[in-house]
Order: sequence, then C-alpha cells, then structure tokens
Amino acid sequence: MFTANQNFRMLPESYLFSEVGRRLREFKEKNPGREVIRMDIGDVTRPLPECVVEAMRRAIDEMGHAETFHGYGPEQGYDFLRELILEYDYVQMGVKCLGAEDIFVSDGAKSDLGNLTDIFGIDLRIGVTTPGYPVYADSNVLSGAAGIPVGGGWERLIEIPCPAFNGFMPELPESPLDVIYLCYPNNPTGTSMTREQLTEWVDYALMCKALIIYDSAYEAYITQPGIPHSIYEIPGAEKVAIEVRSFSKTAGFTGVRCGYTVVPRTLEFGFADGAEASLNRMWLRRQTTKFNGVGYIVQKGAEALYTPEGREAIERNVAYYMKNARDLREAIISKRWEVFGGVNAPYVWFRPLPHGDSWKWFERMLGEYGISSTPGVGFGAMGEGWLRLTGFGSRENTREAIDRLMSDM
Amino acid sequence: MFTANQNFRMLPESYLFSEVGRRLREFKEKNPGREVIRMDIGDVTRPLPECVVEAMRRAIDEMGHAETFHGYGPEQGYDFLRELILEYDYVQMGVKCLGAEDIFVSDGAKSDLGNLTDIFGIDLRIGVTTPGYPVYADSNVLSGAAGIPVGGGWERLIEIPCPAFNGFMPELPESPLDVIYLCYPNNPTGTSMTREQLTEWVDYALMCKALIIYDSAYEAYITQPGIPHSIYEIPGAEKVAIEVRSFSKTAGFTGVRCGYTVVPRTLEFGFADGAEASLNRMWLRRQTTKFNGVGYIVQKGAEALYTPEGREAIERNVAYYMKNARDLREAIISKRWEVFGGVNAPYVWFRPLPHGDSWKWFERMLGEYGISSTPGVGFGAMGEGWLRLTGFGSRENTREAIDRLMSDM
Repeated sequence: MFTANQNFRMLPESYLFSEVGRRLREFKEKNPGREVIRMDIGDVTRPLPECVVEAMRRAIDEMGHAETFHGYGPEQGYDFLRELILEYDYVQMGVKCLGAEDIFVSDGAKSDLGNLTDIFGIDLRIGVTTPGYPVYADSNVLSGAAGIPVGGGWERLIEIPCPAFNGFMPELPESPLDVIYLCYPNNPTGTSMTREQLTEWVDYALMCKALIIYDSAYEAYITQPGIPHSIYEIPGAEKVAIEVRSFSKTAGFTGVRCGYTVVPRTLEFGFADGAEASLNRMWLRRQTTKFNGVGYIVQKGAEALYTPEGREAIERNVAYYMKNARDLREAIISKRWEVFGGVNAPYVWFRPLPHGDSWKWFERMLGEYGISSTPGVGFGAMGEGWLRLTGFGSRENTREAIDRLMSDM
Repeated sequence: MFTANQNFRMLPESYLFSEVGRRLREFKEKNPGREVIRMDIGDVTRPLPECVVEAMRRAIDEMGHAETFHGYGPEQGYDFLRELILEYDYVQMGVKCLGAEDIFVSDGAKSDLGNLTDIFGIDLRIGVTTPGYPVYADSNVLSGAAGIPVGGGWERLIEIPCPAFNGFMPELPESPLDVIYLCYPNNPTGTSMTREQLTEWVDYALMCKALIIYDSAYEAYITQPGIPHSIYEIPGAEKVAIEVRSFSKTAGFTGVRCGYTVVPRTLEFGFADGAEASLNRMWLRRQTTKFNGVGYIVQKGAEALYTPEGREAIERNVAYYMKNARDLREAIISKRWEVFGGVNAPYVWFRPLPHGDSWKWFERMLGEYGISSTPGVGFGAMGEGWLRLTGFGSRENTREAIDRLMSDM
C-alpha cells in the first residue's frame, strides 16, 4: 500500500504568500470598490530590459530554424553564461577563488534553495534565522531533515533568533550547527551584514565544519560600503559556503525564471564515515538526474544582462526600486513607527503603532490604507507584530501608498 | 559537522548520457576526421513550430512593457494552459475524470519524475521496470527510498523484469508493490502496452493500493489503434495513477523546457496511520514551496501548440521522426538483427549480431559505422547486449546512418 510523506502534515497547507493572496481576494470580494496597492509579495513591476528582449527575440529566431536550433543544453547551464557570471559577478568584484565549473545556472533561487536538502546527510542540526524566508525551514520539514515536531518547533531545526532589540541580526549560536541558512541583504527585514559580522559566521562555520547556505538574491541593492556582496569575499568561505543568486529582482526575471547557485569545488566536507565528499560533483549529479537545465532562450536573455546595456538597465532598475524603498522608509519614520531596511535592501520592515498581531495589522493596513503587506509573523515567531512592504511597485503606486499612509497624520 | 547524503555514493558518479557524451568525445579525439552521427540521446532536431515562435515573440514584447509585464505566475501553471491541456489532451480524447486543478505545468518530465519522490512515505516497495529510464531508480536511490544496497540491487527497489523473450513487456509481480513506474510507449525499448495489458496493471494497483507513476512522454508517437494514450483511459486509473507528459519530443521543447504532470484530486491514498492524504494538495504544496513555476514566455509558446497550426506542426514532427524510426527499424530487420520499437515509439531497440556487451557494441557502432547509440545496459541489466537508436535525427543523417549500417551487407 502506498503511503504519503507525513512530513507534509506538519506544515500549514498553504505557503505564506498563498495565504496572503487568499485573504486579499476575500477583502476584495467584501470591498468591491476599494483599490488595493499590492506591496506584499516581492514581485517586480519594471519590464524586461530592451537588450534582454532583443537577445531573447534573436534566440527564438534561432530556435525556429533547424540549422540554429538548440535542444537539450547542459544541465548546469551553458558555458557562455557561466563564464560571464564568473567574470562579472565574482572576478571583477575581487573574488578570485571560483571557477566556471562551480557555477550552476538554475530556474531560480527558490528551486535551488528547496532542492539543496537533497545533498544533506542525516541527523544534521540545521540553523534557520527567525524571521526568515519560509522556504529554508519548509524544505527541511518536507525532506524530514527537520526531524519530528518538538514543542512548537522541530527536533533538528534550530531557530537562530534575530530579535528586534538586536537590530534583527543573528547572534552566533552557543552550540555547534551543521547547516546554517543566511540571507543578506535580508528578506524580510532588509538588514545587511557588515564584512566583520559575516566574517564571524564564516569563522564559526570553519570551526564547526558547518555548511553555510548563503542567499544573496538582493546583493545588487547594497548601497553602503563595507557590506559584502558575496560571501566569497570573506576568506575561507570557499571551504564552507554555497551561494544562491537570482536575476529575478534586478532584471525583472520573476516571470522568466533564471538564477544560479555556486557550489565551489573547494568545499571541504565529507560523508558520515569521514570519506571525502565533493558537494560540487554531488550537486552536478543531482541536477543531471532531476533537472534538465534552463531553456536556451532564457539563458540568452540572461547573457544580455552582462553587456554594458544590460548592466545599465540593472542599475536603473535597482535605483528605481531603491527610491521606492527609501521613500517608504522615510514615510514610516515620519509616522514614528519602528523601521528597518530600505537602505541596502528593497524591503521595508516595520512595526506599526499601536503594537499588535501581524495578521491583525495586515487586515488593518488593508482596511485603513488599502495597502497589502506581508505579515512578519509569516517569517517566524520573531516577526510577530511586524510587517514587510516591498519597494518593487511602480513609482505611482508607491507614491499613492505613501500618501495614504500619511493621510491620518 | 556537516555530512553529505551518502546515498550519492551508491550511484555511478555520472548519469548514463553524460558517460555516452564522454566516450564520444574520447572517440572524436582519437579519430579527428571521422564524422559521427548522433543517435544516442533522445534529443530532437526539428525547429520550434512557426506558431510557437510567433507566440513567444509576442510574449516577449509583452514582457518588455510595464503595462503588459508578467512577474511571478502561479506555481502550478497559468490557467490558460491548464485548461487547454485538459480540453485537448484529455476531454477530447475521451478522458472525462480530470479537472484543470489536477494539471501541474512543469519545466519538463525529468524534473517532475525526479521530484515526485518528495511526496513518498517511508518503507515503500518501489517497482521499476528493467530496462527502464534511469531517473526512476536513481531519484529513489538519492532520496533514500530505495534503501540500502543488497546484492547488486537495493533493499526496497524491486526490479520488474521485462525480458527479451517476453517482448520486453513486464509481468505482474507476485508480491505487492507500493509504487510502480511505468513508461509506455516505452523508453528505451519502444514497446507499447495494449489497453488490456495496461488494464491489468491498473487493476493490480487498485488491488494493492499502489501508486502508478505513468510516464507517457511518447504518447503522440502511437500509430496503432488499441494502444491507450493516457492511463486515465483505463477505468479506475484516476484513483491510483499520476501521469507525466512533455512537450519536448513533439514540439521541439527539449531546449525550451515545458511539460506537465497530472495528479488527480481523486487519488485514494493515505498516510501511514490511515489518515486520508490528498496527493494533489501535497504536490501543490511541494511546488509552491520548492518551485516558482514555468516562465510566462514558455507557457505562451506551449499555448500555441493547441491552435490548429500548432496541432498540425506536432503531427508533422511526429510523422517526420516516425519515418526515421520506421526506416531504421527496416534496415535493422534486413540485417537480421533482433529489433523492437519504431512502430508506436520513436526509439529503435535492437541486438546486433554477433551478440555481445552493450558497451562493446557501442564502441563498435562508433568504430564501424560512425553511429553513436545508447548502450542498453545503461537502462538496467536486462538491457545488456542491446542498443537504442532514436528517430529524432534529421532525415539526411538518418539516411546516411542507414546507408552506413547497410554498407557491410
């Protein structure tokens, strides 16, 4: 008799953003005339850059002729794209410890972050920051790596608290962890780690022989100096860290689907019996077995992002969204609500007054201002009372949202 | 200390087709002048249909303007595509037991076939046919569902032999299985199941409460009557079967990446404690957590396949590749080598004379005829001595390959 994976029962049936969507539809049904400004899910609104559109058009034409048709590509991505990623995102940024073979092109950060549990051994102590992006914890619950439920949490899923009084920054755990998920600039809190802070975590991982999964999907939004864009800027990180990145938030690829994950050949890990393991070879085996690569047209679109026009387009997008985030931040500050983010990240994380539950405030933001936010508690208990807004809306909608927020001042 | 998933050690480091590619490169280095005709991997050569090219061009233009830009789409696919799949691939084919909610658009059959282990419970007896597509077994070995290695096989991975003397058809196992992978028309043997044969398997699954994972990626290649295109043509299958399909082999999507998987809401399975489980809801949860959907441009391309022009283009492609496969089959018959396939499938599966190892014959096919094949033993021990050729080449290359095969007659 087939039986289903019971780990699924330990999760709420719907993913955070599905629940936000459901409540939003409910609100709209009850309030048919009201116009809601969506600032909840981190979806972008700027169109694809012209050079990407042109590159994809050319690639489609190639695909329409037998002589230039491209069938199956390499599961790890075409070399033309991997070489550009290496050169522009790493070598030119001062990171010299990687090679193109360390880079795996993917259909987006969420897939890779979810699927990376495939290469985990058993009985690991897995650290996830709270608040944090739900996929880190959820994918480990589904795979069974999180173990059985224990007192509101999970046996082997260790929450790394990022409390408000500490500026939502994590403190090094007292006991050793085996896997650590870090995301900086952070989703949802918009906070960022300095080089010194990230060095502490790399040193900690080197000491415990822990694997860091570093989600740097928002690195392009860093505006201040002294904030590392890649974990590989930190000496020794190439021995302990996997880095996950995305073209979604910089180039409008949320609906195109392309990102990449770096699994260095220099990682120093082993199997339970001490034998050496190459996570790079394992991830290649995983991808060649359970994935068939990203489409040619999409990779040609991503390639165009490394031309001067593509890089300018990304700069313009980032500047556009960051102005939104900064303006939102200013508006919230002038309401005397506590706020984080909006400086090195496109997210604004705030606690409205009077303090109350995140979901209650979610409803109140909808009802009073017609603004859809993401409840902070959806990112973990430490986020209770907080809300997240994104700078990814259009300028017009962001201005209108700010006007609404200021209307009762 | 992080330790890696040791199940990876139980698999050869490289996937079958990577090994074929490696040996091919080696051959070319040693024989620089020789022109090799690739008939190994099942990659197509006909370009994208014109209507797909046009639809994708329009979609890219939409993505290049803020007013018509599409960001994140539903993880399970856009309704416009799911409704068409339901109508044309099922309802019009006489399958009335499904709804659009049962259909999940994916980036291809390989991803879904690999990831479906995510919803499996533990201690299942998993049946895989041998010869068979390696992903079925490999993904279960990687996930740990296959258990520990036992005498050349795996504890919980039960091989369902499809011996040559039985026309490479599987016999019903004597002991009950919990999961059964079936692929018809079959890759690699090119055999197909009649309605009566498939009914036996559905009845068996209903009796054992087993889950059938039915890979029907090649259904469009069926030319004879009485061969079911979908497992849901068999009464009761909607209670026991998941069906996986692809646009790769019909519409030239191997390098575009789109397919779909049907997980009916009517499946009747439970958790280990007997509580009811909805695999449909679980797969939705899996996809919303670990996947972000297929790109908008790609889905608009797939949509065009359901226009009259798209359907004609698919018919033309299928006819083109099937002529190749039939001609290959005839050539092999005239060499008095045993052969299967090439009638309801684009694969030709044959045993050259004198009988010998698959890999030795792989090398000999390269050396004597300059033809790259896939060694049958790569699909399991039952395939030893056999080779697979595909009809997916160009007409010119296929003719040339046939000439070479006949040259020593």
